[in-house]
Amino acid sequence: MKFLEDRIRKDGQVRPGNILKVDSFLNHQLDVELLDEIGKAFYDKYKDAGITRILTIEASGIAIACSCARYFDVPVVFAKKAKSRNIDGEVYTSVVHSFTYGKDYQITLSKKYLGPDDTVLLVDDFLAVGKAMRGMLDICSQAGAKVAGIGIAIEKGFQEGGRTLREQGYNLTSIAIVDSMTDDGQIVFREN
Amino acid sequence: MKFLEDRIRKDGQVRPGNILKVDSFLNHQLDVELLDEIGKAFYDKYKDAGITRILTIEASGIAIACSCARYFDVPVVFAKKAKSRNIDGEVYTSVVHSFTYGKDYQITLSKKYLGPDDTVLLVDDFLAVGKAMRGMLDICSQAGAKVAGIGIAIEKGFQEGGRTLREQGYNLTSIAIVDSMTDDGQIVFREN
Repeated sequence: MKFLEDRIRKDGQVRPGNILKVDSFLNHQLDVELLDEIGKAFYDKYKDAGITRILTIEASGIAIACSCARYFDVPVVFAKKAKSRNIDGEVYTSVVHSFTYGKDYQITLSKKYLGPDDTVLLVDDFLAVGKAMRGMLDICSQAGAKVAGIGIAIEKGFQEGGRTLREQGYNLTSIAIVDSMTDDGQIVFREN
Repeated sequence: MKFLEDRIRKDGQVRPGNILKVDSFLNHQLDVELLDEIGKAFYDKYKDAGITRILTIEASGIAIACSCARYFDVPVVFAKKAKSRNIDGEVYTSVVHSFTYGKDYQITLSKKYLGPDDTVLLVDDFLAVGKAMRGMLDICSQAGAKVAGIGIAIEKGFQEGGRTLREQGYNLTSIAIVDSMTDDGQIVFREN
């Protein structure tokens, strides 16, 4: 959608290696007004889907999930990237490979907060190869929860995550899809 | 404040070792309406302090910071717990010991998003010994930013973090202060 494309053009920075830096508004410094526009866009898309929980993964996803949950009036649950003393009891786990950090990590979610009666909207700030999303989908599958949709702020359309998820029938909404970037900073967005 | 004390009494759980579990509404599953009440309470307290940025640390702090920033109409910046490829350029760093995870970690914040012209409200979900808060204060000191206040959802009043910060002159607001917990689940809150 145009509001996010405009903001990426204005404040995003392209770095060699197909890295798109949006840390001034989306994943280090956070523009809450923009996050609310993203949350509203997901609400417009999935408001009739019977969503009972917004699921995301720490850390950047939390901000988008909170903006989203405000519209849906449902709780957020975020998967944790480390086993914490703050989670006890039975948990779902899955292993995710992070290209950003260059390693595997385990994500954890308490069984108390996701189950077969849930209809879930999964949200995250970025979708590239889709490893983090696969981990969340794995947890939803373990929980027996219904995945009503996936909401992504920025999809890297030149990587396979989005295409594969769509081919598998997931209802995926990406606010902005970057089809290509050049090292001199040009960004080509996919037409909607 | 009563709204958070009531919620802790209703949904919090005391575990041996002075662990207070509030993962059903504050740091795993998130109740956005409650977060907004917390943000509003901080706004009421610091609205005339000239706040330019809300600073927190990933992950649970992000949700409170976003609710807070909505009232102040300023950006959130969150310190990252790992060196990410998503941050480049000059950074502030500090080392924090986590009792929850039982290890030291480095926190990182881009110099672009905090400087000597900033007046900061620091927020976090918990304050116990205060190690994470010390890391954030260290970063504010490196940045030359003014710390106008510290907003905490739940302070463990029987640990030294809050007392020490108040003795050092920080303007600290804790929405709920737990003075003691017993293994049979009783929680005593400090009178305001």
